[in-house]
Amino acid sequence: MQTSPDQAANTDSAQPEVILERHDEIAVIRLNRPHKLNAVTSQNLADIIAALDTCDADDDVRAVVLTGTGRALCAGADLSGGEDTFVAEPDADTGAAPPDTGGQVALRIYRMTKPIISAINGSAAGVGVTMTLPTDVRIAAENAKFGFVFTRRGLVPEACSTWFLPRVVGISAAVEWTVGGRTIPAAEALERGLVRELLPADEVLPRAIEIAREMTRGTAPVSAALTRQLMWRMLGAPDPEVAHRAESIGIYTRGKSADIRAGVSAFLAKEEPDFPDRVSDGLPDLFA
Amino acid sequence: MQTSPDQAANTDSAQPEVILERHDEIAVIRLNRPHKLNAVTSQNLADIIAALDTCDADDDVRAVVLTGTGRALCAGADLSGGEDTFVAEPDADTGAAPPDTGGQVALRIYRMTKPIISAINGSAAGVGVTMTLPTDVRIAAENAKFGFVFTRRGLVPEACSTWFLPRVVGISAAVEWTVGGRTIPAAEALERGLVRELLPADEVLPRAIEIAREMTRGTAPVSAALTRQLMWRMLGAPDPEVAHRAESIGIYTRGKSADIRAGVSAFLAKEEPDFPDRVSDGLPDLFA
Amino acid sequence: MQTSPDQAANTDSAQPEVILERHDEIAVIRLNRPHKLNAVTSQNLADIIAALDTCDADDDVRAVVLTGTGRALCAGADLSGGEDTFVAEPDADTGAAPPDTGGQVALRIYRMTKPIISAINGSAAGVGVTMTLPTDVRIAAENAKFGFVFTRRGLVPEACSTWFLPRVVGISAAVEWTVGGRTIPAAEALERGLVRELLPADEVLPRAIEIAREMTRGTAPVSAALTRQLMWRMLGAPDPEVAHRAESIGIYTRGKSADIRAGVSAFLAKEEPDFPDRVSDGLPDLFA
Repeated sequence: MQTSPDQAANTDSAQPEVILERHDEIAVIRLNRPHKLNAVTSQNLADIIAALDTCDADDDVRAVVLTGTGRALCAGADLSGGEDTFVAEPDADTGAAPPDTGGQVALRIYRMTKPIISAINGSAAGVGVTMTLPTDVRIAAENAKFGFVFTRRGLVPEACSTWFLPRVVGISAAVEWTVGGRTIPAAEALERGLVRELLPADEVLPRAIEIAREMTRGTAPVSAALTRQLMWRMLGAPDPEVAHRAESIGIYTRGKSADIRAGVSAFLAKEEPDFPDRVSDGLPDLFA
Repeated sequence: MQTSPDQAANTDSAQPEVILERHDEIAVIRLNRPHKLNAVTSQNLADIIAALDTCDADDDVRAVVLTGTGRALCAGADLSGGEDTFVAEPDADTGAAPPDTGGQVALRIYRMTKPIISAINGSAAGVGVTMTLPTDVRIAAENAKFGFVFTRRGLVPEACSTWFLPRVVGISAAVEWTVGGRTIPAAEALERGLVRELLPADEVLPRAIEIAREMTRGTAPVSAALTRQLMWRMLGAPDPEVAHRAESIGIYTRGKSADIRAGVSAFLAKEEPDFPDRVSDGLPDLFA
Repeated sequence: MQTSPDQAANTDSAQPEVILERHDEIAVIRLNRPHKLNAVTSQNLADIIAALDTCDADDDVRAVVLTGTGRALCAGADLSGGEDTFVAEPDADTGAAPPDTGGQVALRIYRMTKPIISAINGSAAGVGVTMTLPTDVRIAAENAKFGFVFTRRGLVPEACSTWFLPRVVGISAAVEWTVGGRTIPAAEALERGLVRELLPADEVLPRAIEIAREMTRGTAPVSAALTRQLMWRMLGAPDPEVAHRAESIGIYTRGKSADIRAGVSAFLAKEEPDFPDRVSDGLPDLFA
């Protein structure tokens, strides 16, 4: 009989397939179909988006961790539909291709106002790995394996991974891994920058929560939200002038905020700041 | 007397200056002016483009390797024209600058539907190194040296290297190497990501062919072609939404293809897939 | 009693707060408020821009080094204005946010025609570190610490750092460091690519001058200026075709210049080139 929390969840079929947990100010979104190695259905992906919405709307959540129950993070799309798994209806109005569901998850993560950490507790393939690319930090189990397996099924990469992956690991690794589709061991993922740390599997989630705390402790939530969105948006901007305009609005609006008065006063007094502004009260539009 | 294939080519002046060889499904494009350290003329560059066209049009070619005969990959532009080597006529109609020939080679590589590996068998300077930047993987001889020598001749970098190089090695190394123009030893090229592996010179080509096989074995050619083009195109795209639109078309069109039926069925049956779709039958336009 | 040049400067309150020095063809811009750990006022930032203008206008200056007096590079913005330090008047005409002053420094560095090296002699926080991001090379003292402290004060990153930082250290480190705002030790800055070398503090400036000399010796000033600007501009360009057009103009105009005649002749004669063209005579517009 096994008694670790992971293994307990492993045997509790009454739990939902996507679980939202809380560890104080850190939220954990957990894929919970361990008997399927957390392969995801369209409904699961919609549930992940709903969980991200919940986290973003709640001022008491300062950061999010994405993980899975059991020995895998996510085996990719659930293929129980067989050959027809990826057959889709065109858009009823336009006749165009419907939006890729993995891409909708990726764009939701990209737009988060809070940092999000991938706690890759085990192997990740297909959308199981591509959905982690817009998260801010990826750490993984030492025995995790990664597979960008799309060309081996007759598909193409999705979840906006053709945009995110070359920016995370460089174009050479991105092309090699996705065109070739071979299995990537954890050590290679570390070496080429897909993940930042490797740990024993049962230490991955606690360490991710620790990193999430380090990334939020002592910071102003509105400043953190604007900063995360600036960084990801500017990753695709054509020149630094775009950043200059957005940051100038940010410095001007934040420069007269209640937060900065609290922050500078606390700094000069060598005290911990207590920031009054809340993300739910609205953010200034830096990209007007 | 030397009998290795390289050395044999070295002494056969009856061979063309750009050779297209085949190793089963892998094509090798070989610069073959060893007495000039494979310095290239305009005609050589045109011949490289023609060889790339041939490889892309042939469904039996799954990947391409670029290499050189003898002890260098390529010493750069052939300077036998002396001081006037780079004097060019303006465009007859517009009076504008004519297109840089190295850039035409680079753009042709960028647009390839098949992976392309640089087997850098020896030193590479000027266009000899810049033309390798749009290839997917670069491996090199342990004794290779690299030179982005343009500012030392009074020129500027070309072959679209001002776009490719900062994306491959980062802006700091890119500026340092090209503004300064000093000779870069193989170890530094490895450390800063210009090349991925160093090997004894005579093992470079066999290893490149092995990597090419790893990147093509068991994959659907149409999926591989779309994936390579998506990755390189998205490297310059302004935001992940652009990728989301292109990938959605890719997932939709591939999702109802004969290939994915073959791929998913084989995967579920734990068999090797046999993909029926051919690149020469045309690719869907993902960037409409 | 200490007698090193740094320490001497440390005690000379008659010197200006931004000093422009010359070491032959290398200019050194030195922040000189050691009693404030070189924290910068708006006037100091304006003086840095003026010093950069002077360096760019002087053909006898081939490269620039940015450093600080004493034990820090720069502690960030001078907070002696207290809570109101960042309160600013809106633009009188438009009512819009005024331009961020740090961003004006960063854009000036971005547009330099000469290489610029950061000699990070000690810790750097806030604008003290963000202003180094558009410099070409960063080297630092072994005991330097870095802080992207903006979210800990209630502010957002500035100096166009939301554009530069993810391109220098990758999006993951950029988000982690700026959203979280923790102190980054020199070893981590080296490992993740923020700086290229660590040295004992008193060796940082001499080494930076040495790198500056390596990046200028034997090169054509006009070619170096065009190359630096091409690389930084193309870092944000949407595709390699943009580089192809700009480089084609560069190759065409430089290909018939006096410089290339000097450069190719010297190369063929195995002599050191003597390039006649001067940046102050004007540069061709490659981005027309």
